[in-house]
Amino acid sequence: MRQFRNDYSEGAAPQILQALVDTNYEQTVGYTDGDPHCEHARELIRQAVGRDDVDVEFCIGGTSTNVIGVTGMLRDWEGVICTKDGHINVHETGAIAATGRTVLPTQDADGFLSPDEAEKVYQFQMSTGRHMTRPAMIYITNATEFGGVWTKAKFDAICDWARSHELRIFLDGARLASALTSEGNDLSLRHIAERVDAFYLGGTKNGMLFGEAMVIADPRLKESFPFLQKERGGLMAKGRLLGVQFEAAFEQPADGSEVLYWKLARQANACAIRLRDGMVKLGFPVYLPSTSNQQFFVVEPAVADAFEKAVGTETFAVLPDGKRAIRFVCSWATKPEDVDELLDFAKMLA
Amino acid sequence: MRQFRNDYSEGAAPQILQALVDTNYEQTVGYTDGDPHCEHARELIRQAVGRDDVDVEFCIGGTSTNVIGVTGMLRDWEGVICTKDGHINVHETGAIAATGRTVLPTQDADGFLSPDEAEKVYQFQMSTGRHMTRPAMIYITNATEFGGVWTKAKFDAICDWARSHELRIFLDGARLASALTSEGNDLSLRHIAERVDAFYLGGTKNGMLFGEAMVIADPRLKESFPFLQKERGGLMAKGRLLGVQFEAAFEQPADGSEVLYWKLARQANACAIRLRDGMVKLGFPVYLPSTSNQQFFVVEPAVADAFEKAVGTETFAVLPDGKRAIRFVCSWATKPEDVDELLDFAKMLA
Amino acid sequence: MRQFRNDYSEGAAPQILQALVDTNYEQTVGYTDGDPHCEHARELIRQAVGRDDVDVEFCIGGTSTNVIGVTGMLRDWEGVICTKDGHINVHETGAIAATGRTVLPTQDADGFLSPDEAEKVYQFQMSTGRHMTRPAMIYITNATEFGGVWTKAKFDAICDWARSHELRIFLDGARLASALTSEGNDLSLRHIAERVDAFYLGGTKNGMLFGEAMVIADPRLKESFPFLQKERGGLMAKGRLLGVQFEAAFEQPADGSEVLYWKLARQANACAIRLRDGMVKLGFPVYLPSTSNQQFFVVEPAVADAFEKAVGTETFAVLPDGKRAIRFVCSWATKPEDVDELLDFAKMLA
Amino acid sequence: MRQFRNDYSEGAAPQILQALVDTNYEQTVGYTDGDPHCEHARELIRQAVGRDDVDVEFCIGGTSTNVIGVTGMLRDWEGVICTKDGHINVHETGAIAATGRTVLPTQDADGFLSPDEAEKVYQFQMSTGRHMTRPAMIYITNATEFGGVWTKAKFDAICDWARSHELRIFLDGARLASALTSEGNDLSLRHIAERVDAFYLGGTKNGMLFGEAMVIADPRLKESFPFLQKERGGLMAKGRLLGVQFEAAFEQPADGSEVLYWKLARQANACAIRLRDGMVKLGFPVYLPSTSNQQFFVVEPAVADAFEKAVGTETFAVLPDGKRAIRFVCSWATKPEDVDELLDFAKMLA
Repeated sequence: MRQFRNDYSEGAAPQILQALVDTNYEQTVGYTDGDPHCEHARELIRQAVGRDDVDVEFCIGGTSTNVIGVTGMLRDWEGVICTKDGHINVHETGAIAATGRTVLPTQDADGFLSPDEAEKVYQFQMSTGRHMTRPAMIYITNATEFGGVWTKAKFDAICDWARSHELRIFLDGARLASALTSEGNDLSLRHIAERVDAFYLGGTKNGMLFGEAMVIADPRLKESFPFLQKERGGLMAKGRLLGVQFEAAFEQPADGSEVLYWKLARQANACAIRLRDGMVKLGFPVYLPSTSNQQFFVVEPAVADAFEKAVGTETFAVLPDGKRAIRFVCSWATKPEDVDELLDFAKMLA
Repeated sequence: MRQFRNDYSEGAAPQILQALVDTNYEQTVGYTDGDPHCEHARELIRQAVGRDDVDVEFCIGGTSTNVIGVTGMLRDWEGVICTKDGHINVHETGAIAATGRTVLPTQDADGFLSPDEAEKVYQFQMSTGRHMTRPAMIYITNATEFGGVWTKAKFDAICDWARSHELRIFLDGARLASALTSEGNDLSLRHIAERVDAFYLGGTKNGMLFGEAMVIADPRLKESFPFLQKERGGLMAKGRLLGVQFEAAFEQPADGSEVLYWKLARQANACAIRLRDGMVKLGFPVYLPSTSNQQFFVVEPAVADAFEKAVGTETFAVLPDGKRAIRFVCSWATKPEDVDELLDFAKMLA
Repeated sequence: MRQFRNDYSEGAAPQILQALVDTNYEQTVGYTDGDPHCEHARELIRQAVGRDDVDVEFCIGGTSTNVIGVTGMLRDWEGVICTKDGHINVHETGAIAATGRTVLPTQDADGFLSPDEAEKVYQFQMSTGRHMTRPAMIYITNATEFGGVWTKAKFDAICDWARSHELRIFLDGARLASALTSEGNDLSLRHIAERVDAFYLGGTKNGMLFGEAMVIADPRLKESFPFLQKERGGLMAKGRLLGVQFEAAFEQPADGSEVLYWKLARQANACAIRLRDGMVKLGFPVYLPSTSNQQFFVVEPAVADAFEKAVGTETFAVLPDGKRAIRFVCSWATKPEDVDELLDFAKMLA
Repeated sequence: MRQFRNDYSEGAAPQILQALVDTNYEQTVGYTDGDPHCEHARELIRQAVGRDDVDVEFCIGGTSTNVIGVTGMLRDWEGVICTKDGHINVHETGAIAATGRTVLPTQDADGFLSPDEAEKVYQFQMSTGRHMTRPAMIYITNATEFGGVWTKAKFDAICDWARSHELRIFLDGARLASALTSEGNDLSLRHIAERVDAFYLGGTKNGMLFGEAMVIADPRLKESFPFLQKERGGLMAKGRLLGVQFEAAFEQPADGSEVLYWKLARQANACAIRLRDGMVKLGFPVYLPSTSNQQFFVVEPAVADAFEKAVGTETFAVLPDGKRAIRFVCSWATKPEDVDELLDFAKMLA
């Protein structure tokens, strides 16, 4: 049976892979510094986000991108506010602390950073002057760790709050493609690009072999990025591999249809919704509502084990009553028939 | 009116200061490395803690001591478990993160690290292998941030828990003198020295101009300490100043009475208990029970302001109902009549 | 004209790329943690190095590999001795310092770390105890930054020296394939694996899209590596991409011929020697002798500019007399006819 | 016999110590944040340096001061240029690297950073863009590590060079008092304060128990300093101890004579010159010319050993011919008769 463990279980979408094959013998200078593919991809992304004043930089993976972004926008004694489940707070082995900066988690439990909880952390951190890490930045994720998709209203509220406190805004877009193509989404790429200081368009989890494209509006990060990327070990020698992949993802198809980047995400989402609806119909309660490519359900431990064995799902939370929140992930490579096969299996566990 | 803001509001106990004056013209080698006062103080402390296999090192202040201790016992990717109010978690401007290590706070709210809450953090951090900071150490404080004194039972329980999880144990003893001389205390210095990997005997908050004496049993920290102390900027050129002070504090008086280190703390505690009993009698509710030199009471905001203005008390927590937990601190320099004057003033606010 | 700028100017050797295409739709768990390709590649490499007690870990690039290796074998206050031109000393934007460790450069000018110069640094660093970074490791590169290939005698001498000083040994093998297949080389992969604590088999500069395989004998680094790789942002989500590539490189061909990893390097070397011999014949003086895929010549500034414009060569050193040492690099993708075309061009500048 | 090992072999000048005794029972708020002694000392120092727009901050010792100053003026990927013998390069156990920043040493061998050598380092570091640490600051010391005193011309030359390269300037003034009161000195405190971004007035080596006063003109460091001081473990709880000492050192005496800070240094210098002249007369060759309180002579190893045993001198360099450069240091506590006694002893070794 097809696995639903993750959106990085396969290689790359065939169009992406073909682009790598097609350009394989070209000779380029290294490090994303001026090869034509990177330059072209930069231009395509600038158009997509609707700003020609941003820098576009190509990174090798999520942790590396987060670390460079945070390091470049925080001074040594400053901290970044995020939810307690934020990827940088729990899933990156202390990578932010490893650069000397401090993560300041809120008590938000649903993956969305809220002005109310952020305000509590902010007030506390400001309460004893130089004896506390000074908040200088917020970190949000779209889609969230739990598959949640930010509405425009919610997004504007946290941005307004951050601005009113003179905090920079960083958006982790590892699964941004899925979020922005999800059913009912009312937040646009352009609006994000207008409001945040830096964000990235995730490639690894949306059909590329690897790679994230960081869009940088903040002047301080613009200046620091190139050096920090090298210093933090995140600069790829054959940088054009990133350019080639993002070029393929954002190049306008001749037939006028949507660019590949969004198409791949829609495909993953469609399977995820099919999966969600099927599971709900079978009586599996949703853990937190999601319209994106990750879906979470609450199940008994034995059921969690059965799913894990069969399709590689992972446990994300053990609930107070002993039940578990498990995650199913669809990708560009998931097919509707894979979902149906899963649902047939799930029927036996329902 | 005498201030009750802190136990570092004055200079040094007169005996300590006199020792500095008496030795002022002696010439010694620097950096605590082999001058007779440091060597003698080391010997006195080894006797006091009942172990001749420990290293005794002299530090300039609490944050510096904590940072060196944590850095010397954690690898880059390891973390230290402490309560959410732990000094290293909130009051040191991210000093642990500044060395690349991660603080892993529990939800304990009373200042005591409990096996139950520590276990939750431990289990969570172990749940996804290399993607999470690996817990390797616990950090506890005696007396706690809220003046609480560890009982032997409670102390043994957390030590047992730590040992069963192969975690190192670090005890912040900035106010250890006050804790161990407090009414009802059943934990001995020797027992602490037997069980923890490193701890310190605080001097700054117990009558010295500055200085903490770190007692180190852990072989890894023993080897690292001298270098880390220099690298972290915590090595004092005129190191003998630390030796002279701790010598004066731990030298056995000719009259057979207790050494100065404990005497000074008893004096502070006696005033604190007088203060506590007087305040309770006046109807001020205690915030968290304390038998040591810090006392916390719950008061209305206006009363908090009045106390702050009069005697320099600080707000430690704003409670959900808007009331405040304020702190009164007694030191070796506090006199019973100072307390009585304070209580007279408090009467007007009761 | 074909560029001679670098050995990472092209994509991947066709056999490597084909392996990625062939395995593209397979689903694997992430992060190199247990997918069959990584496991198989690990096994092949263990066989190639002749040790089954080593860990084999897959990294994304040279700087990241160096940083993880150094961090995992040095404590905060320890340093690594290398030549002044060592990659970690000059070409990685302070990546070692960024992890808090110190690089201790010698005055060796030819790219080879010598016992004599290393001894000078060692003695100096040991001269004032804890006031100086303590040397704990050496870093060498084969081939060196200037294309030099270590003889067995020279290699054993520096290893003997390091062992006699209780220093760990790390070998940067970004171009190890070229070194070990170079004309006259008498150092074997197995001998290296017997003597050093960690080294890596470079893939990026030998026909892979990216990737280095670290071989780890040191117990401390073994334990730290998985966590450090994540913490330093060097862990690839689709880890199997590394496994697939190294599998293709080290899989024994059915025809009994040499594995691809060495074949690719021989091809690069053959072109480099053809280039060298041709240039020497034309009268261009060699800068430092090299038998590997990098060749350096001393030329007038105007000639340097002409070569740079034509084939992308870079200046590596400006000599006291104003002349320049420029570098030509051949790769698996260089063909003899490319070299001949270059030599035709060079004739005009000779 | 009186030791000549160091200028931190004794406690404090009696006037300084008396000030500590006199203020011992005063209660002040902590951390140098607003107590009257610190505020007064700040005002006195602002007057002495002739600028009321600078921040004056009190530090606990040289390494801590250097680390805070460098961290506060360098971004993660920037480096500081200094001579190869610079204190931060060799004598602080990698304290700068421990904060993630890189030291970029020149080949200057006499302790003075020269525009020519600095330019070489600068040009090299700028040669490959983001692959190298970007120079952003210079670090100089007055008096130098070898007792040398900067002339105004030399000082202006390096400042001009730094400004023309947009580098910040940091002056380590651990022995600034000795330099500025030395015979023939033509550089004024006011001129230094006009030209550098930050510097400090050393107290530890000029008659205080400990303490350095950092004078900060740079806006970035002004903002960062308070937080960095806490984060780096360099903030003293009883901050007023620093204020009291610097107050005593810079308070104008009622008799109109020079302030204590300069008087103490003149006393040390006078002894050092007496020592130098005596030694030279005895035929001991000077190592590097010095007019300040440190004097270096070239002697045979056996003579070095004899001096070390007798008066605690240390070897600073082993020369190619096997001879040694040894250091004699005078302090505020050295008396002319101590020098004469030393010279009597030296006569036997001449």
